[in-house]
Amino acid sequence: MRALTWDGAALRVEDRPEPVAAEGMAVVDVHLAGVCATDVQIVRGYMGFHGVLGHEVVGTVQEGPEAWLGKRVTAEINFACGRCAMCARGLGRHCPGRTVMGILGADGAMAERVAVPVANLHAVPEGLSDEAAVFAEPLAAAFEILEQVHVRPRTRVLVLGDGKLGLLCAQVLHQAGAEVLVVGRHEDKLALLRARGIDAVLASAWSGEPAEVVVEATGSPQGFLAAVRATLPRGTLVLKSTFAARPEVDLAPLVVNEITLVGSRCGSFPPALRALAAGSVDVLPLISARVPLARADEALRLAQQPGVLKVLVTQ
Amino acid sequence: MRALTWDGAALRVEDRPEPVAAEGMAVVDVHLAGVCATDVQIVRGYMGFHGVLGHEVVGTVQEGPEAWLGKRVTAEINFACGRCAMCARGLGRHCPGRTVMGILGADGAMAERVAVPVANLHAVPEGLSDEAAVFAEPLAAAFEILEQVHVRPRTRVLVLGDGKLGLLCAQVLHQAGAEVLVVGRHEDKLALLRARGIDAVLASAWSGEPAEVVVEATGSPQGFLAAVRATLPRGTLVLKSTFAARPEVDLAPLVVNEITLVGSRCGSFPPALRALAAGSVDVLPLISARVPLARADEALRLAQQPGVLKVLVTQ
Repeated sequence: MRALTWDGAALRVEDRPEPVAAEGMAVVDVHLAGVCATDVQIVRGYMGFHGVLGHEVVGTVQEGPEAWLGKRVTAEINFACGRCAMCARGLGRHCPGRTVMGILGADGAMAERVAVPVANLHAVPEGLSDEAAVFAEPLAAAFEILEQVHVRPRTRVLVLGDGKLGLLCAQVLHQAGAEVLVVGRHEDKLALLRARGIDAVLASAWSGEPAEVVVEATGSPQGFLAAVRATLPRGTLVLKSTFAARPEVDLAPLVVNEITLVGSRCGSFPPALRALAAGSVDVLPLISARVPLARADEALRLAQQPGVLKVLVTQ
Repeated sequence: MRALTWDGAALRVEDRPEPVAAEGMAVVDVHLAGVCATDVQIVRGYMGFHGVLGHEVVGTVQEGPEAWLGKRVTAEINFACGRCAMCARGLGRHCPGRTVMGILGADGAMAERVAVPVANLHAVPEGLSDEAAVFAEPLAAAFEILEQVHVRPRTRVLVLGDGKLGLLCAQVLHQAGAEVLVVGRHEDKLALLRARGIDAVLASAWSGEPAEVVVEATGSPQGFLAAVRATLPRGTLVLKSTFAARPEVDLAPLVVNEITLVGSRCGSFPPALRALAAGSVDVLPLISARVPLARADEALRLAQQPGVLKVLVTQ
């Protein structure tokens, strides 16, 4: 089958062996795969991953247990052992023995087919389009904030960054009732938020007033430092983005202002699928481009262009 | 009066004007002042403070409201405005207009007398010695962990560092019922903990097994990095020490492992005074030396010697 691979030096669309549905696994015929900022980080060296990229997927189960055959699905990306202490606590996403689809030791979904554990499958609700459902993974990561931080309806939340993750986090926090302000760099993206009743300003026009909860979604070391400054004493700074750079962090302000810094990564899919099915989060305007798998290397290059949001790899 | 001053270049015991009990203030005749790691950081450039050092104090009220005159007291160190949003939330310790005794814009207690707001005074319980009561401030900082983090009796807590703050934090967490392990570098200090039933090992003998809650109390950038590695996924890392160095922090493990980093500083005094009065925390073995005010500059140098715990400045 055809797949987009990264070998540490080059991105290539090439022939790969067909995935096999081993015990407990299913093979999914891929309809769509989304390009994520993490994919871009991987081709910059993050995680040292070599293999088929892609961890945002919608497809149809082609092989696996009878009950799943022919079902339209998406899949959680952390493949857990199911037997360790973390798995026992329902935190398979932190299983120390896990592989991660397209990120760590497991081939990803920018391919004709992908193998995933049956336990990771989620049926896509009827009526939900493939192009919306492919956002389940990044939207689950946005919902993860609400799993970790008690965001109250009266909480003032500042979201720094108007990339894909920033736009999804802002919508999730807004739906949870919080008073959200997004600070970004792209008037067109901020307009998407305003259309949903979310306050959004250009960084150049921002007052700099600190907030009780700040979400760092710029993905840059400078954004992290700005986020520390924008967090009120005793406030919470949610760190959503991973970046390869190692900023020289002055930790003293975190201590002096007693800031709680919350590292936040993947979430579980059901809340995201519920929100997508209900239409309470708007994802389709975030699609910037569709690129066929045969040219998926271009999709990754395109995703790195300024102002480009979600790029989808089609069959 | 005599006082220990720091002018950015030299430590000097010199004559200073007598403090005045302005409106809302009291003048305390100092019995004892403790030397804290923050004092050592200040003479290395932290906070850019110039003036009389010292923020751990026991004394007798000499001037001020009738009700306080002659009372034996200790005093909280953050002098708040009492009118801002932070003060209204009971967080005067984070008042943006605050001064801080011996740290920021207010003279400290390594002197014959010190002026403090009446609102900051706490009566020392009868029967509690001056030498124990002078630990109210650092012990309150240890109790602050319990204000910020829900430490359950079944929580496994790792304390990195066997300095003054590490020893106090370990005792407070142990008293709260948690399963505490302290990792340190000084057999004699670890023995103090073991005598109270707290597990303690030399760093060289430590298994490195991570814990759900980790308290960083080494005060070194290396300690911070070790603490990140020792925190379980979804765990909490409490950062108690401020240091002037700016480590190059790889933030990715915080995000990938969804670690919550809690900056923690001063606490309120009543829990600390209750614990001291009840004898549930043992502080007297932490006193390494007593130095008279006339030679208080030596006290600061002594406090920087390896293995030295609390140095008290006497009159």
